[in-house]
Amino acid sequence: MNEDFRDTASALVAIGRSFYERGWALGTSGNFSAVIGRDPLRLIITPSGVDKGELTVAQILEVGREGGETRGLKRKPSAEALLHIKVIERGAEAVFHTHSVWGTVLSNVHAPAGGIPIEGFEMLKGLEGVKSHEHREWLPIVENSQDMPALAESVSRALMKYPDSHGFLLKQHGLYTWGASLAQAKRHVEILEFLLEAVGRLHMIKPTV
Amino acid sequence: MNEDFRDTASALVAIGRSFYERGWALGTSGNFSAVIGRDPLRLIITPSGVDKGELTVAQILEVGREGGETRGLKRKPSAEALLHIKVIERGAEAVFHTHSVWGTVLSNVHAPAGGIPIEGFEMLKGLEGVKSHEHREWLPIVENSQDMPALAESVSRALMKYPDSHGFLLKQHGLYTWGASLAQAKRHVEILEFLLEAVGRLHMIKPTV
Amino acid sequence: MNEDFRDTASALVAIGRSFYERGWALGTSGNFSAVIGRDPLRLIITPSGVDKGELTVAQILEVGREGGETRGLKRKPSAEALLHIKVIERGAEAVFHTHSVWGTVLSNVHAPAGGIPIEGFEMLKGLEGVKSHEHREWLPIVENSQDMPALAESVSRALMKYPDSHGFLLKQHGLYTWGASLAQAKRHVEILEFLLEAVGRLHMIKPTV
Amino acid sequence: MNEDFRDTASALVAIGRSFYERGWALGTSGNFSAVIGRDPLRLIITPSGVDKGELTVAQILEVGREGGETRGLKRKPSAEALLHIKVIERGAEAVFHTHSVWGTVLSNVHAPAGGIPIEGFEMLKGLEGVKSHEHREWLPIVENSQDMPALAESVSRALMKYPDSHGFLLKQHGLYTWGASLAQAKRHVEILEFLLEAVGRLHMIKPTV
Repeated sequence: MNEDFRDTASALVAIGRSFYERGWALGTSGNFSAVIGRDPLRLIITPSGVDKGELTVAQILEVGREGGETRGLKRKPSAEALLHIKVIERGAEAVFHTHSVWGTVLSNVHAPAGGIPIEGFEMLKGLEGVKSHEHREWLPIVENSQDMPALAESVSRALMKYPDSHGFLLKQHGLYTWGASLAQAKRHVEILEFLLEAVGRLHMIKPTV
Repeated sequence: MNEDFRDTASALVAIGRSFYERGWALGTSGNFSAVIGRDPLRLIITPSGVDKGELTVAQILEVGREGGETRGLKRKPSAEALLHIKVIERGAEAVFHTHSVWGTVLSNVHAPAGGIPIEGFEMLKGLEGVKSHEHREWLPIVENSQDMPALAESVSRALMKYPDSHGFLLKQHGLYTWGASLAQAKRHVEILEFLLEAVGRLHMIKPTV
Repeated sequence: MNEDFRDTASALVAIGRSFYERGWALGTSGNFSAVIGRDPLRLIITPSGVDKGELTVAQILEVGREGGETRGLKRKPSAEALLHIKVIERGAEAVFHTHSVWGTVLSNVHAPAGGIPIEGFEMLKGLEGVKSHEHREWLPIVENSQDMPALAESVSRALMKYPDSHGFLLKQHGLYTWGASLAQAKRHVEILEFLLEAVGRLHMIKPTV
Repeated sequence: MNEDFRDTASALVAIGRSFYERGWALGTSGNFSAVIGRDPLRLIITPSGVDKGELTVAQILEVGREGGETRGLKRKPSAEALLHIKVIERGAEAVFHTHSVWGTVLSNVHAPAGGIPIEGFEMLKGLEGVKSHEHREWLPIVENSQDMPALAESVSRALMKYPDSHGFLLKQHGLYTWGASLAQAKRHVEILEFLLEAVGRLHMIKPTV
């Protein structure tokens, strides 16, 4: 158990730092989690308010289903632990939430449509289960809120309405994506952030919004 | 005391180098300070004209309220020490001044309005005391000047007029922000630079200026 | 032979990681190969689905002309091994396939024209055999497909139609380029990615598409 | 003498690698030189065609006034050694030539005007001798050519016509700047590249070209 915690936390820390380096988790933004037990549910998660460029294993918290902390008592789990749990309840083993400039910009530009269609890119094949670039990914945009239970509810509804989506954006806030492993969730972050940048730059060359 | 100096200077150097890496302190631009004593006021500050990518603890100067150097005699404190002191007199423990491309560009574009409104972004919650993305941050733009006492006066006026602002821009020059600790001031730099880039890219997709 | 494999694989790994760092091979995208024997043809190639930021020599596979693996049995060679072989049959010693944002964006914008003209840039002289900036490089855009033999056929046709081109783009997918050595192929990637970004940014300042 | 060579070459290598990291010397582009003796003139310079990300002291060449190599016989000095010497004859101790995307783009956009006016930026004060942001820097654009003596002649004319300029652009090619020391020349590169990016992004928000 201890070893599980340490190994998974160590991988989570390395990934979190790499996102910070790319500018996707500046200013203590972003939070990252992974399941380390299912019965009862136990997950590890980054604490609230830490610098992701200096993230350490010692900072990683262990929490249960309600988001209450069971270990690593010195810090509060991220306020968004509830959203992570909503995603984990649908089967994900790891959940990553990043704040990138392009995600922020596009979640604003596409908010009236409720989501961003991403279609025709080979990169889409990096999303689990996608076999062809002809795939159309719908990235739902959920209205942001500081009322966490209400936001968790909105997220649940979006997840149910778009069960095939590999992530969602909170408006003017950031990206949530997940995977069946830490590596898969990391891949999904990189792919969706790449695609958001590509879509954003396409808007600038061929204005279509 | 010596230890205080060394520890704080060492943290300042690491943060300064990270800003250089991100392109926010190129060409010896930018200057960074932190309070190490209040009675009488003593602060450490980067010297004028050093390469922030090669900043060392040995280069850090100690100055008093007038910006005169009391230690580390070989170099001149930044000419902008006066501006740092104006901010510190209002309670800040650390002051960071960066020169980013986006800050420079937006300080020009928004100069006629006297400031940049930043509103609706979750990232705003990283600014001390901000509890909701519904916050409206006003980033005042102060006309640049080479007359330091006059510029310090303009900065003072802006700080008094907008006491809730977490930073200000000098026109076509750069960002000043601060915090109750080095970590908080670093967070404020990352958040405001992120938001300036997001606002700038939004202008390019949806021209509104 | 073993030593050949190890040295070439080690160089390939270092280059692959440098592309990942620049954001040209995110999310397990991209694949890289090099010839280690011609009679019969043997090449080394990155496996399908590995994180290019954590690429290791142990992951590199050795395959023959049909793309079937002859060594390093634990992973599948990239599905695009066939495309690499088409390029290698025309004489290349190393083939690099990157997925950059600018390549993706421009392959979409210029698709109706079937390619991108790049002309007048000094940087073109870094392409093997080009002696002057007055060179006009035509970067063909090949329609993307999941049918590998069909795609290999399209690529072959493009290579025959534009024998002087130093690379090609797969539409909304990425860049292929190559060279007479790993170093030359790396140089071609850097030059073409640079030129794609320059062309893309020119479109944004002077809309001409 | 040997020590001089080694120390200066070592500093040159570190700076060259930092430019490569920032994307200002990709694909073996760029070349860097420094004076190590004046009577007779001896300078060190990067060789033609080396990867600036793997630049080593052993690769650095020593050449005399005619650009002929006097040391480090295995490689050819950069073909642009003549241009470096033209600048050095006017007093510079170090000359840096970078190829950035923004320099390339703006040298194209502003070519009809023969140069780029850069005015009102605090960052200009990092250019040697500039005391105020109210300075107007004129960055001449010289038509590119493969005829090195002819190009050296054009550069000489531009240097004479604009004796106060701190650099010049070769059209669709890159930036030349210099300084009274390696550190000053490095600072000038960072400042001019920063300003070119700022001017370029301003064009995208407020089209004025």
